[in-house]
Amino acid sequence: MPQVKDQGHYRYRQLAKQIRDDIQQGRWQPGDQIPSVRHLMASHQVSRATVLHALQLLEQEALVLARPRRGYFVNSPVPEFHPSASPPVVAPRLFDIDDVVQDVMRHGAVFDLYPQAAMPEGGDKWVPDTLQRALGRALRQQKERIHAYYDEPEGHYELRDVIAQRLRYQGCQTVADDVVMTQGCQHALLLALQSCTQAGDTVAVESPGYFGTLQLLQALGLRVIELPCHADTGLDMDALADALQHWPIKALVISPSYATPLGSCVPLSARYRLAELARRHEMMIVEDHIYMELGWSDEPRPPMLSLVPERVILCSSFSKSLSRALRLGWVIGPSVHSHLLHLKHITVLSGNRFIEQGMADFIQSGEYDRHLRRFTHQLHLQKNALLRLLHQHYPETQFSHPQGGLCLWWRLERNVDTLSLYHQARQHGIVITPGIMFTTQALYHQCLRLSFAHPWTLERRRALLQLKQWM
Amino acid sequence: MPQVKDQGHYRYRQLAKQIRDDIQQGRWQPGDQIPSVRHLMASHQVSRATVLHALQLLEQEALVLARPRRGYFVNSPVPEFHPSASPPVVAPRLFDIDDVVQDVMRHGAVFDLYPQAAMPEGGDKWVPDTLQRALGRALRQQKERIHAYYDEPEGHYELRDVIAQRLRYQGCQTVADDVVMTQGCQHALLLALQSCTQAGDTVAVESPGYFGTLQLLQALGLRVIELPCHADTGLDMDALADALQHWPIKALVISPSYATPLGSCVPLSARYRLAELARRHEMMIVEDHIYMELGWSDEPRPPMLSLVPERVILCSSFSKSLSRALRLGWVIGPSVHSHLLHLKHITVLSGNRFIEQGMADFIQSGEYDRHLRRFTHQLHLQKNALLRLLHQHYPETQFSHPQGGLCLWWRLERNVDTLSLYHQARQHGIVITPGIMFTTQALYHQCLRLSFAHPWTLERRRALLQLKQWM
Repeated sequence: MPQVKDQGHYRYRQLAKQIRDDIQQGRWQPGDQIPSVRHLMASHQVSRATVLHALQLLEQEALVLARPRRGYFVNSPVPEFHPSASPPVVAPRLFDIDDVVQDVMRHGAVFDLYPQAAMPEGGDKWVPDTLQRALGRALRQQKERIHAYYDEPEGHYELRDVIAQRLRYQGCQTVADDVVMTQGCQHALLLALQSCTQAGDTVAVESPGYFGTLQLLQALGLRVIELPCHADTGLDMDALADALQHWPIKALVISPSYATPLGSCVPLSARYRLAELARRHEMMIVEDHIYMELGWSDEPRPPMLSLVPERVILCSSFSKSLSRALRLGWVIGPSVHSHLLHLKHITVLSGNRFIEQGMADFIQSGEYDRHLRRFTHQLHLQKNALLRLLHQHYPETQFSHPQGGLCLWWRLERNVDTLSLYHQARQHGIVITPGIMFTTQALYHQCLRLSFAHPWTLERRRALLQLKQWM
Repeated sequence: MPQVKDQGHYRYRQLAKQIRDDIQQGRWQPGDQIPSVRHLMASHQVSRATVLHALQLLEQEALVLARPRRGYFVNSPVPEFHPSASPPVVAPRLFDIDDVVQDVMRHGAVFDLYPQAAMPEGGDKWVPDTLQRALGRALRQQKERIHAYYDEPEGHYELRDVIAQRLRYQGCQTVADDVVMTQGCQHALLLALQSCTQAGDTVAVESPGYFGTLQLLQALGLRVIELPCHADTGLDMDALADALQHWPIKALVISPSYATPLGSCVPLSARYRLAELARRHEMMIVEDHIYMELGWSDEPRPPMLSLVPERVILCSSFSKSLSRALRLGWVIGPSVHSHLLHLKHITVLSGNRFIEQGMADFIQSGEYDRHLRRFTHQLHLQKNALLRLLHQHYPETQFSHPQGGLCLWWRLERNVDTLSLYHQARQHGIVITPGIMFTTQALYHQCLRLSFAHPWTLERRRALLQLKQWM
């Protein structure tokens, strides 16, 4: 940034303009931290008052966001972006997902715009070699007995122990014996819903929300009520409070941190409010925690499990943060623990001990954390690159600005139908996830989920631009 | 056998007596083939008529069994042994499994009388080293992509292909695309039941029958009707036909080959009758096929899937025949295929591709069949050893004489309660499976399931004899 000469009361406007330009031209991305006040004073040779004045102006314009004791950050350029024009809350009801959507859902977990793209040569690996080695070692060590006997239904103790430890770092009071290993997060969600609901009960979900949850609700004969979400702050707690007044909501399924498809993150104050609502209305919270470790913000994000443990069933897995092949998930619900264990036992009997052992070793060696640091950094860069591509090539559209996770939510022109777009793109090997999959109410026709889980190689950039021709 | 001199019409009685003694003193075990007529003529220097006469006598005494074109076999010494005194058929009903039984069930999958016994030094291995190597190779080969993408919900093509091939050898018309991989057989049973029933429907089961099925029926809110079984020939088809006249039975869960706990095997003619009943009454057959490859009889045992494919959902896994750690099962239901696939997808999303690849390689190399031959031979010897031990030390009790599988059914004196026996034995590390677990009707108190899956080392023989003191 060039210097701004100190010329009376206009100086702060000049400084503000420069920062505004930097943001609007995409040099700084939403979530980036603005240089410190001290740094701006020095680099622009202005007084402390001028810098603060400029930042206040930008704050009023909602371009920057002040965070106590942390400084100023670039805000989302569309802070009022709602995923749709505030869908009306519809009363709880049973529903059917039609076959076309079911079919799309089956292919929807891909999280890659162009799955046939080559892995970048010599580039970063998706998983470190050390994972392979840890699994191989566990396979060789665990010889005879694991084949002759089933694992304990809870799963391997050491792995449950390191998972509990990680949750303690996040503020939970979890111990190994609270953890029940599952075959991935979807299986965890199934057990969680079965443990706290019966067919015909009402369950609230985020809208737009994860389609795997919607499929489970349908299969279990549960009534659904969709609640609107903000692209930045997630579930609208006012809408939830209101719904709780009107309907007997047995459980809420929510991803407080980096929900798919929005990438939204529920702020601290809203988490406290949610805990209070759950307590008052005796509602269970099924907390989808799968993206928790994939954030690049370091704001406090206590899991709901730490705030109101008796009303939470936390579900997670390593599928998004490390590997989709391991099939290692877990479910933790202190108030329904024995029920969860029973359901795990009768649905799949037990897990794969050598994979659980290998993963425990991998975490304990520190390799998992090294992988996470590298991977979240890479995701952050890929997200920024995607935002730049969208700003540049689709300036008329809107998109969310996630602080973590693997995807963002993209709203196209009003007359585009993303389900047709999906079918056309698929013929060319391009996979988008149409908005209609994230609702049971036929909303979000002009929206879609876009992944930034993979590097923006030439092939993927081309695929993104190709979409234009079918819109 | 010493020679019998040909002395007029008494000779056949003498020959019969010798064979009878051999059987009753345990030198020949139920299921063993009697030497051929030609061989008996030569070894005893008697005429063909004398041999046939002797065998006819033994057949009338139900000590031997003639099988067309195959010869004579030792019959069960208690051919009329019913698992209990013919329990009355009780109308379909919802049921609860009490907590004590639930707890026993959780530990019931062990299939080892004395799990803390050391693996025999230098003895046969439970799994061949080649399995380990095949898995290790698959792990190294399948590098990046398997971690970055979910497997197809159906599972790995090559493995589905070899599974279909094996079923074709058994007479089914299965192709790879009919097969849906699951996380073991319990998971397959869950999907099968979900695909053809709804809460409140009536499902028939074998009595005594596999407790994992009973747990699933309870969890899914299904009504159960228990049908009596013969220790040798399995489900009583007359009882089934009668029940179908009276109640709307939506599905039957049955293990036609080597059912747990009886080890019974449904004869060919009864299989045809079952197919006909299923067709006429539009009843689905959930065929638990898990012990199919663990038989040592070579009578034709066509899976129900080969006889009435449109009404069968076949469930199986490698857990009993190879390894409990792989968590590889499958479900095949041609008439409900897409429903099964959908349920697999929403319950666990996908499977572990490198384990599936490793297993496919292991089968294709011929190693799995080599393992099966060795393992079933070993099981046959262990079963015979167990029968000898029981004959010798518990002569007053009755037991089934399985032709395959991993266990037999043991009926103790009338005043013994095997649930108390279970609790007492467990304190000493001995695990039996009390009869009450195999019913919802509080039957079989004096019965238990006894495993012969492990070698009768000194420790296990001692454990078996120790049971006496708590009876």
